[in-house]
Amino acid sequence: MRFKFPLMAIALEVAMIVLFGLFVQYETDQNIRQPPSSSNSTEVNRFFELYPLFQDVHVMIFVGFGFLMTFLKKYGFSSVGINLLIAALGLQWGTLVQGILHSHGKKIHIGIKNMINADFSTATVLISFGAVLGKISPLQMLIMTIIEIAVFAGNEYLVAEIFMATDIGASMTIHAFGAYFGLAVAGVLYRPGLRRGHDNEESVYHSDLFAMIGTLFLWIFWPSFNSAIAEAGDKQYRAVVNTYFSLAACVLTAYAFSSLVEHRGKLDMVHIQNATLAGGVAVGTCADMAIHPYISMIIGSIAGMVSVLGFKFLTPVFATKLRIHDTCGVHNLHGLPGVVGGLAGIVAVALGASDMSTPAMQAAALGSSIGTAIVGGLIAGLILKLPIWGQPSDQNCYDDSVFWEVPRWREHDHHFHEHNGHNHLEPEL
Amino acid sequence: MRFKFPLMAIALEVAMIVLFGLFVQYETDQNIRQPPSSSNSTEVNRFFELYPLFQDVHVMIFVGFGFLMTFLKKYGFSSVGINLLIAALGLQWGTLVQGILHSHGKKIHIGIKNMINADFSTATVLISFGAVLGKISPLQMLIMTIIEIAVFAGNEYLVAEIFMATDIGASMTIHAFGAYFGLAVAGVLYRPGLRRGHDNEESVYHSDLFAMIGTLFLWIFWPSFNSAIAEAGDKQYRAVVNTYFSLAACVLTAYAFSSLVEHRGKLDMVHIQNATLAGGVAVGTCADMAIHPYISMIIGSIAGMVSVLGFKFLTPVFATKLRIHDTCGVHNLHGLPGVVGGLAGIVAVALGASDMSTPAMQAAALGSSIGTAIVGGLIAGLILKLPIWGQPSDQNCYDDSVFWEVPRWREHDHHFHEHNGHNHLEPEL
Amino acid sequence: MRFKFPLMAIALEVAMIVLFGLFVQYETDQNIRQPPSSSNSTEVNRFFELYPLFQDVHVMIFVGFGFLMTFLKKYGFSSVGINLLIAALGLQWGTLVQGILHSHGKKIHIGIKNMINADFSTATVLISFGAVLGKISPLQMLIMTIIEIAVFAGNEYLVAEIFMATDIGASMTIHAFGAYFGLAVAGVLYRPGLRRGHDNEESVYHSDLFAMIGTLFLWIFWPSFNSAIAEAGDKQYRAVVNTYFSLAACVLTAYAFSSLVEHRGKLDMVHIQNATLAGGVAVGTCADMAIHPYISMIIGSIAGMVSVLGFKFLTPVFATKLRIHDTCGVHNLHGLPGVVGGLAGIVAVALGASDMSTPAMQAAALGSSIGTAIVGGLIAGLILKLPIWGQPSDQNCYDDSVFWEVPRWREHDHHFHEHNGHNHLEPEL
Repeated sequence: MRFKFPLMAIALEVAMIVLFGLFVQYETDQNIRQPPSSSNSTEVNRFFELYPLFQDVHVMIFVGFGFLMTFLKKYGFSSVGINLLIAALGLQWGTLVQGILHSHGKKIHIGIKNMINADFSTATVLISFGAVLGKISPLQMLIMTIIEIAVFAGNEYLVAEIFMATDIGASMTIHAFGAYFGLAVAGVLYRPGLRRGHDNEESVYHSDLFAMIGTLFLWIFWPSFNSAIAEAGDKQYRAVVNTYFSLAACVLTAYAFSSLVEHRGKLDMVHIQNATLAGGVAVGTCADMAIHPYISMIIGSIAGMVSVLGFKFLTPVFATKLRIHDTCGVHNLHGLPGVVGGLAGIVAVALGASDMSTPAMQAAALGSSIGTAIVGGLIAGLILKLPIWGQPSDQNCYDDSVFWEVPRWREHDHHFHEHNGHNHLEPEL
Repeated sequence: MRFKFPLMAIALEVAMIVLFGLFVQYETDQNIRQPPSSSNSTEVNRFFELYPLFQDVHVMIFVGFGFLMTFLKKYGFSSVGINLLIAALGLQWGTLVQGILHSHGKKIHIGIKNMINADFSTATVLISFGAVLGKISPLQMLIMTIIEIAVFAGNEYLVAEIFMATDIGASMTIHAFGAYFGLAVAGVLYRPGLRRGHDNEESVYHSDLFAMIGTLFLWIFWPSFNSAIAEAGDKQYRAVVNTYFSLAACVLTAYAFSSLVEHRGKLDMVHIQNATLAGGVAVGTCADMAIHPYISMIIGSIAGMVSVLGFKFLTPVFATKLRIHDTCGVHNLHGLPGVVGGLAGIVAVALGASDMSTPAMQAAALGSSIGTAIVGGLIAGLILKLPIWGQPSDQNCYDDSVFWEVPRWREHDHHFHEHNGHNHLEPEL
Repeated sequence: MRFKFPLMAIALEVAMIVLFGLFVQYETDQNIRQPPSSSNSTEVNRFFELYPLFQDVHVMIFVGFGFLMTFLKKYGFSSVGINLLIAALGLQWGTLVQGILHSHGKKIHIGIKNMINADFSTATVLISFGAVLGKISPLQMLIMTIIEIAVFAGNEYLVAEIFMATDIGASMTIHAFGAYFGLAVAGVLYRPGLRRGHDNEESVYHSDLFAMIGTLFLWIFWPSFNSAIAEAGDKQYRAVVNTYFSLAACVLTAYAFSSLVEHRGKLDMVHIQNATLAGGVAVGTCADMAIHPYISMIIGSIAGMVSVLGFKFLTPVFATKLRIHDTCGVHNLHGLPGVVGGLAGIVAVALGASDMSTPAMQAAALGSSIGTAIVGGLIAGLILKLPIWGQPSDQNCYDDSVFWEVPRWREHDHHFHEHNGHNHLEPEL
């Protein structure tokens, strides 16, 4: 049993190497570097022009998402560690499936946009990871990564090439998709035994500070996320500016509503860690449109408010009534703000902020993203439920010591006071 | 009472949106992207050329300043959280007031330099925040942000457009200004009850490590801070090189003097976290001048030494004799090194390192920055002292649990062993 | 005795300033900024083109290496603090010695590649620091920095200008060199008294999370490290792409083998923190060659596997049989993967992936790097063993409180439960 995870990881890496050998090539020479005298700055020759934006996105994926999930007191190793594992697998797999879909039978030539898109495709899985955090095993996450990125690439192809909708910051295709996919998986894998919560499902003071490392790097680099693959010039510029101001506005309403809904007007770290980012999600679809900065601030303000209200009122209902337990509250950070972003896109297109799309095309993209995510997530959940993968027992949830050698001082530590014999994994990893 | 903070935050955000709707526009199309065939690289068309430097500054503001202040054992949520809140408000407000002053009645067109300057204007508030850290409420910080950025923009306009002095790295207009503004506020809000210190006003081992995250990102990206708005070419290049070497030299003297002044030659984390950055502050005014790398190293060496000596000998005198309590020691990191930077600028201009200014113009700028800061800070302090805002009681200082829902494990935790009933806020938040 | 460290630090800084005054100049005006109409993009005029890559490397040096070493429970201040100190000294000294060797008697003109190379030269010392972490004093580290960078620059000159070998990502000249230099020093300074380990030589939960900050920033920016000084165009592009995919593949095998070799299939944080980076080391020499992405994935996969096996089986043998105690396991992260990289380079050149070198030249470079490192390290070790420098006693190893004022709450803290009287330093710092 203990060999399943390592053998699966090795098998997947061997498969990636073989597929890369068959399908992937370097970008050809003359495209890499733009001759300064030529004025046709096509996509392929902007490699080092976009490299700083790629690195910003790269930081978001590995540090941002990784540390954002370290808020649980005993699940930091897995949060940041499994995040690294599935992102490393996902970027290889994403390069392949997105490349194959968009290359129309030719070889995949690795340009900077392929690398940015590969990072994007992992974002979808990392969002879904938040919904099931602490409740599934690394082996299950490897499987989910393979399934989800394939479904994501299919929906992304549908949205971009069939519906020809615009979604530059991926409010719909990444954020809403990742959230609803993860919620569907969480619904299938629902654990009635954890209905009343779990002792481990809480933060400690310093784990909340570690999570803020993730929050801040996501917040800072979100303008790069929304503009990285935008068309050079006006559109890319607007994607930066709109995201910058949307996020700033979002912070104010997130703080205000956190204080409004909490006991005695205090602030809640969960809201600050998450809802302050909702402005980046919600402005995504319209980010490159000429919507005016104050409109992006309105979108951000609404997103911050909606996200806090979701954490306060919707997440408990999901857990109890809908039997969907969402560990990180991805519905509030990515789901609802993603839908807000999709709706804002429909309105913006209807009002003429972009002539690249129509309201119907945008609505189809939103519907497709949510629909594909739910169907794909349900199927993925059923596959993940197969007993061959194994999953942690209820009492072992949110506990690094199930998958990790935790430091041997643990018996002296407050946060790890359980006896060693308590960890049961059914069936073993 | 508990509604004051959220309602003020919402009101301010609504005001920002209205003002943006009235005064702010996108940069016009043709300016954003430089046609590769044209050779006139004017300021407006360098958006993505300067974007990496903007992002470096952005990291300094949100991660650098935020984590630098997490050194207090029970005030990490507020340090990093209120830092985010006031920076998000400040960058909107800074965009407006700086834009209005410099646009001469026209609409404000958002270019990359507006965004960099908006981030800069928040730096002033974040420096002042360090002087009052732990002693005032989030609501008071919102008020202080609005006042300070308005005064800052006024002084910056005076220095740049009236005195026509040069201060590329803002030793005077940001660092000295922010420090003396904060000290003036701290003086007005002096708490005799904390004359003998406070149990919470100390670090724990891991809070000192969190603070080093802030220190390092500030240290690394300081060359970008000092060069971001410099004139392209030689000047911008020199701003990077001078800052890089000034900071490196500063580290050596900061370590040396920390060991010299401490008991048995040991190093003090407070010095390492702060004085290692003084070289970036002090070289600011001269950063883009042709002063020679070894001169910037001398400036950095002096700054590291002065900063450590300030922490060791001046801060206690301020607290006891002058009745000014400076939580983070911003006088030693930003005040003294800022003055050193202003003086170095006068000397450098006198010696002909720049023909853009005269010693008298530089001296006027230094005097104006300190004078405006003190007067503005005194007024701000009197306004913040009004009972309508409320502020933490003496015993509640430096304690996150006054403003935040701290994790419920707190009764089991060493760092939070007080009884719940102890928290009093007069009047309530 | 207590004045040796500060006086040495001041003396070294004074020496640096004098040497900079004698040998260093700004880059001359016309080279800094590339006129957009000219097409000859020579090295000197790419300052701000390469600046983002420089900053990525800068983050790796100060945040990456600094936090990677914070895994020890009581040695975080020294890890991140001494890392800053020796990197700040090293970048000044590296600028000088590399500059003098390559400038052929002329003045050193500071361009972006000088700054990148200065950061690189500090990397060598920081790698060696990992081998002796916790066992030597800050004063000893200053001495080691001066010696090692001089030897490094000599070997680098030999490899690049005499053997004319290619090693763009410095698998041999930085990683293998730094590791074997450090191991030689560790061998000379071997402490029989610590044969059975030390209570302080272990991590705690949050120190392992701090270390992951270092790991992730190293992992993310490694493509910049391997490409920063590559020739613009195809080669620089390939250095990014090959490193990106090598690292991704390396993660999968590092996780798989960590699980395979550990008790009950659990993952070990030491492997995840270190072996996931081995792919960046091992692909270094070939990074800019036309080796095909799937080959770089194979190199990365092998490196991840070799690194984990080294931690599991080789490090204990080194400590017991060879009497070389390697605190951070730099042999497994930098030594073995560096040799793998050097061998891969020989094979790649033999198969025609580069026409800039021959297998014999590459083999000479590998031999020279390891040989020079061992000889230099042995000499450095003997110098460091001189009683005049002082070094911590066996019982004081891995303990910040020997060199730092640790917070006074320490008697209440679990991680610092020793009595105060226990710290002995022989002779005193």
